[in-house]
Amino acid sequence: MKTTLSQLGQRTAPPAISWLMSLTLGHPKLISLAAGFTDNASLPVDEARALLDEILSAPRTGQPALQYGSTAGEPLLRELTAKRLTDLDAQADRQVGPTKHGRAALPRGLHLSPDRLLITHGSQQLLYLLTEALCDPGDIVLVEDPTYFVYLGIAQSHGLRCRGVRLLPDGLDLAHLEQVLEELRRAGELQRVKFLYLVSYYQNPTGYTTSFAKKAAALKLLRRYEKFAGHPLYLLEDAAYRELRFAGDDVPSALAAPGGPERVLYAGTFSKPFATGVRVGFGVLPEPVLTTATRIKGNHDFGTANLLQQLLTRALASGAYARHLAELQRRYAHKARVMTDAIRAHFPPDVEWREPQGGLYVWARVPKRLRTGPKSHFFQTALKRNVLYVPGLLCYADDPARRKPDHEMRLSFGGASERDITEGIARLARALPQ
Amino acid sequence: MKTTLSQLGQRTAPPAISWLMSLTLGHPKLISLAAGFTDNASLPVDEARALLDEILSAPRTGQPALQYGSTAGEPLLRELTAKRLTDLDAQADRQVGPTKHGRAALPRGLHLSPDRLLITHGSQQLLYLLTEALCDPGDIVLVEDPTYFVYLGIAQSHGLRCRGVRLLPDGLDLAHLEQVLEELRRAGELQRVKFLYLVSYYQNPTGYTTSFAKKAAALKLLRRYEKFAGHPLYLLEDAAYRELRFAGDDVPSALAAPGGPERVLYAGTFSKPFATGVRVGFGVLPEPVLTTATRIKGNHDFGTANLLQQLLTRALASGAYARHLAELQRRYAHKARVMTDAIRAHFPPDVEWREPQGGLYVWARVPKRLRTGPKSHFFQTALKRNVLYVPGLLCYADDPARRKPDHEMRLSFGGASERDITEGIARLARALPQ
Repeated sequence: MKTTLSQLGQRTAPPAISWLMSLTLGHPKLISLAAGFTDNASLPVDEARALLDEILSAPRTGQPALQYGSTAGEPLLRELTAKRLTDLDAQADRQVGPTKHGRAALPRGLHLSPDRLLITHGSQQLLYLLTEALCDPGDIVLVEDPTYFVYLGIAQSHGLRCRGVRLLPDGLDLAHLEQVLEELRRAGELQRVKFLYLVSYYQNPTGYTTSFAKKAAALKLLRRYEKFAGHPLYLLEDAAYRELRFAGDDVPSALAAPGGPERVLYAGTFSKPFATGVRVGFGVLPEPVLTTATRIKGNHDFGTANLLQQLLTRALASGAYARHLAELQRRYAHKARVMTDAIRAHFPPDVEWREPQGGLYVWARVPKRLRTGPKSHFFQTALKRNVLYVPGLLCYADDPARRKPDHEMRLSFGGASERDITEGIARLARALPQ
Repeated sequence: MKTTLSQLGQRTAPPAISWLMSLTLGHPKLISLAAGFTDNASLPVDEARALLDEILSAPRTGQPALQYGSTAGEPLLRELTAKRLTDLDAQADRQVGPTKHGRAALPRGLHLSPDRLLITHGSQQLLYLLTEALCDPGDIVLVEDPTYFVYLGIAQSHGLRCRGVRLLPDGLDLAHLEQVLEELRRAGELQRVKFLYLVSYYQNPTGYTTSFAKKAAALKLLRRYEKFAGHPLYLLEDAAYRELRFAGDDVPSALAAPGGPERVLYAGTFSKPFATGVRVGFGVLPEPVLTTATRIKGNHDFGTANLLQQLLTRALASGAYARHLAELQRRYAHKARVMTDAIRAHFPPDVEWREPQGGLYVWARVPKRLRTGPKSHFFQTALKRNVLYVPGLLCYADDPARRKPDHEMRLSFGGASERDITEGIARLARALPQ
């Protein structure tokens, strides 16, 4: 008997992460520098308890939290989120200053309307909704090389083709973006391109940030190629790690660049900066994407659970969110330093890496003669020494235009304890050939 | 410039409910007997407060509630859910007795393994995941005539064709099911059929329940046609209202029928019986559907927010859920009686309706010469008199094999107060031609 599964069902592959997680089961003493978990000890247990207690202390606030809401999301949460994003962008603009990124580009007094927001069950859901709303099988999405590997799973399940755009330590390689667009134009494939997916802040997996100037230039470039595509070419800006900044300046969002409001699909989240068990993300979207994504969300679940939305609303309104975030930023700054100190102490000098300024990851590149992939001697040796990382290989899309680099690793300082971070890095170093 | 929207994006229509909800905005004094909201006054505000306070009173339980979990869902919640379902089925079997539905059919000591469960963001998400996992554009799903209108939106967005199977007061019309299957076989279309979608308990919109004998017979019939389809023909049993029973006996799930474990996709939920703002649903699924739906869920959101899952886990484990449910059943029994008393007092005798035994709805049928659709004189008169119902028309799939009936209405006693229920029914009666 044949399968009843749909094309999408048949294409949907086991997630890379499940294979990594199955490894941890067989190795109870394993130190995982692979998981993208956030820091357990700093989860806002007391804050959440107090906020929920307030919400549920009276029927007037308790009942709405336990009842259905609207698909687009709690109006006050959308309002507070829009205001927060407006403030972040205004502040980032002041920090970066007028000359470096062409401040004139910033729309004066950009005020986001809450009507442009859609609240989602984590920003992951938004990535899924946007892919559904925009992409048919065979369509092309441009992704960073390397990129967030879970997104590659979404793209694959939808039968999309990915084209990688090189990522440099200061963000997207614009010359390569132009080259890729030009190649697609010549091949008559531009009408299949839907968007450029950019994890713009402290990127997963590299920790790199794309500057505002580069985002503005990427938007301009996409705009130039629209006439060949025959339809809008969006910039999907995934800002999941934006608020986990612990060094350097914030960068304005691509929404603030010329043409941003019409062409940027901004994906933000409160899950990582507040609590990953409280899955609340959001999108800022132009029409017709907003209406379409909201309708699809209605079919998914008619709206994110109200209890979660009310908790975040109150956290934002009361200042508890901002206080918690400041604490979290100090904590990740510390954990990042623990990791980089250990790397400096143990790794040989021919391993390349950079000091992260935010996020949860350090990206390390060993000499090319060495492999880091799942079947490599190094990965297996590390596993025998009870330490796990994400092989860089998993973070590259299937792109016929290049071979996947296989000498990198993503090291997370999010979930592991300080002690495990130090010990894990030392074990990894011992697994490297001396 | 052309649209960038995908085929799915272009097909996804505004939900019927949004049009109804927009009507309520323009009529502040409107009594809505249309919304499928649950009763506000009986939401478990105090219980949720106490349970969350316990969970968050210590890092040992608080941290896991605020951290990521697994995609399939919290293991203890899956265990408690599997046990609950096993108990419900065993109890229903005893209630119904051996003769009426062929008890021998029930697998003795059916124990559900928690490994067959997937926890979702409400059971709505499960319906979406299953449609994605199983259906390609052009595929056919069999639905009840009438059926849950939000599901029709999911089907339409996926480009599916729906075939309606008549619904009788004791459930699915089996002779019509056979006729439809036979027609599809003759037309060479059976290989496009994926499943029969059945809202088996206190159906939305009719309130009708399909007996166990009928479910078992439907499964058998589907099995017989599998040889023509060339692949499994599933029975998607949507049991969303099962626990909102306030009269009569429970009915065993289709899982308990011969072949049930291999061919039933069971969709359950805790949202309606506990709190709709705490969106936690679940599926009991055979392979390969379970693995595929779980992977797709991983791409949607990597798992339902842990805070919601931990809340339900504790509600189930502590007995708070069972206590709340008993209270809720009394409450809905009362509200249903308020509505049927009003109907008896005000509606003319040529309006047909039935006493509900559970769920949130009364389905009323006016004489055929009268129309109840959105553009009908009756609907508009009712609106002028500030009362809203769901026109029956919206609950019928587009099916070329018949005209949509247009003389029915769904009346909900879930969200409205007792006073509004009585007054709303009186207003509706006055809108009927005397």
